[in-house]
Amino acid sequence: MAALASTEAFPMNGGDGSYSYNRNSSFQRGGVVSAKALISKAVAEIFDVNQFITSSNSISVADLGCSVGPNTFIVVKNIIESVEQKCQSQGLDSQVIEFQVFFNDHVANDFNTLFKSLPCDRRYFAAGVPGSFYGRLFPKASLHFVNSSYSLQWLSKVPEEVVDRNSPAWNKGRIYYTNAPNEVIRAYSTQFARDVGSFLKARAEELVCGGLMALLIPCVPLGTPPSQSPLVAVVDLLGESLLDMANMGLVSEDKVDSFNFPKYNPTPQELECLIESNGCFTIVKMEPAVRAPMADGKAPTIQMFMLHLRAAWEPLIKEHFGSEIIDELFVQFTKKVAISSTLSECSYKTVLELFVLLHRKTG
Amino acid sequence: MAALASTEAFPMNGGDGSYSYNRNSSFQRGGVVSAKALISKAVAEIFDVNQFITSSNSISVADLGCSVGPNTFIVVKNIIESVEQKCQSQGLDSQVIEFQVFFNDHVANDFNTLFKSLPCDRRYFAAGVPGSFYGRLFPKASLHFVNSSYSLQWLSKVPEEVVDRNSPAWNKGRIYYTNAPNEVIRAYSTQFARDVGSFLKARAEELVCGGLMALLIPCVPLGTPPSQSPLVAVVDLLGESLLDMANMGLVSEDKVDSFNFPKYNPTPQELECLIESNGCFTIVKMEPAVRAPMADGKAPTIQMFMLHLRAAWEPLIKEHFGSEIIDELFVQFTKKVAISSTLSECSYKTVLELFVLLHRKTG
Repeated sequence: MAALASTEAFPMNGGDGSYSYNRNSSFQRGGVVSAKALISKAVAEIFDVNQFITSSNSISVADLGCSVGPNTFIVVKNIIESVEQKCQSQGLDSQVIEFQVFFNDHVANDFNTLFKSLPCDRRYFAAGVPGSFYGRLFPKASLHFVNSSYSLQWLSKVPEEVVDRNSPAWNKGRIYYTNAPNEVIRAYSTQFARDVGSFLKARAEELVCGGLMALLIPCVPLGTPPSQSPLVAVVDLLGESLLDMANMGLVSEDKVDSFNFPKYNPTPQELECLIESNGCFTIVKMEPAVRAPMADGKAPTIQMFMLHLRAAWEPLIKEHFGSEIIDELFVQFTKKVAISSTLSECSYKTVLELFVLLHRKTG
Repeated sequence: MAALASTEAFPMNGGDGSYSYNRNSSFQRGGVVSAKALISKAVAEIFDVNQFITSSNSISVADLGCSVGPNTFIVVKNIIESVEQKCQSQGLDSQVIEFQVFFNDHVANDFNTLFKSLPCDRRYFAAGVPGSFYGRLFPKASLHFVNSSYSLQWLSKVPEEVVDRNSPAWNKGRIYYTNAPNEVIRAYSTQFARDVGSFLKARAEELVCGGLMALLIPCVPLGTPPSQSPLVAVVDLLGESLLDMANMGLVSEDKVDSFNFPKYNPTPQELECLIESNGCFTIVKMEPAVRAPMADGKAPTIQMFMLHLRAAWEPLIKEHFGSEIIDELFVQFTKKVAISSTLSECSYKTVLELFVLLHRKTG
């Protein structure tokens, strides 16, 4: 839930205001809640709590890309309850087990808000860990369960080629790869592969043998052209809005040309390939998270959708263009989204939120 | 370096502004630097790094009451360098040892500033731990070295009796115990004893057997009346300033009566007694930290001293009186300090910064 571009970090909107991630993350919450049963089942089947508490005094859990809450607290609660149930099923006294939970996000994340929102009735010792999860964050073999929801799609940086005027991958007139030449798409997928490679390498060192890692990542189904995936196409609408503003003289064309969106939505097959190539994890499960319907049974409104996008994307846009253009940009952007078919019910259903469960191989 | 009053937490001034602790903590730095040699010697003599790295994959260090830096980074660097030297002296390769450092302070501490100030060349994995150190913060037996500098003098709360109009310890017309009846002094010392008891009980659980704990705490020498210790007497000058402001109609008398300063400076003997009564620690060392002279060889100026007090005390005062009175209060307070003998070179030398090194007993 946090982005890095050109070694700069852009977390979600902090604080608790109207545009904060804290107040605008119910969409992500749907996926997080739907992953609950999958996590419980995996813990019940293969989480070797008996061995872990023999060699360590407590169970360590990390949520990587946690942002400011509240979704991270829901995930962590799920994991802890699953481990407690596993204990009970094995005749272990779950009350004697202590949990330590590490909340990780970029240094620029609003940890102050995160810490103030920690649930009072939590049954764990909490710690915040600042830094990019594309590098090492924890000592070797110190974690038993790692989670990362809606974070791995954020690249560690914009691929260098797409901002290089002398490269065939120079992405002039666009901010994304949706309708771009193959060179641009390749630059994005290569950056994603490199980042996921670094992520898996670091986690393979940090997880104990037998430890579990749950990932939730928005993907594009194999064979679906990027432009037909709302996840990808909506970034194009942002690009169009920026170009419109350049035409209106509200922002310079150069500024738009040098802006590229550091996000990539892989196919499940791409991700699987990267996991296999790392070699340290067994894929226990890789399946779409079945999202529960919204509380009122309806699809999210445009307004709600835009608030979610703003909470997640504003810091990134602000860093490049300054804060002056944000309000007007989101007015233009909302208009485009409203009249496009991007969020029509049909394409909305093509969003593939992939749940991946990995088991750290022993030895 | 943080205070709690009536279950409310008042950390040092956050951020990086003129009145921030970040910029105004060089006085505390003197003590921290002077403790370096004492920590190194203790690690060299009794820190069983060999045993620790056999049973754990890394060395865990915690700094409790860390505030926002930079002093905490100096302490942590000292500890890590001392452990590395110990490794070398034992023929161990210190480069293979990983360190995890936990920075603890109240939930209201400015962790965002702390995280942004983390040294880039650090040789450890960093984590922030929000919460009062008078309770448990870490899993059992998970820490190898605990440090706490200039923090234990802050009480977990104002003793209840001193704000109770029906108690003989009601502290009317004062904000502190300096020239107060014995009942008030007793209420403060009892609260301190209870707090240190809770602190030691929690740490005894969290430290591994053989682990070390270094404390730096400003004390009053046995036999010195509180009013003759600048540490204590300076709070009285703050109280006088508040009473003056009440007389000038700038703040209500009731408001001053209901304010008490949640700090207590024990004698070394009091502290020793509390450690013995806990029973889980051996006192390896208990001696005054010999403070290096200021860089320019001079005593701190009044202005510098006042900036330090403001960085540390402002949040506490603001919480009770609101932020409007702060500037005027510090004008009055500075005048009082300037004409009093509290900070004369003579009494300044009577400050006793006690360095205490404890060894967690085995079994």
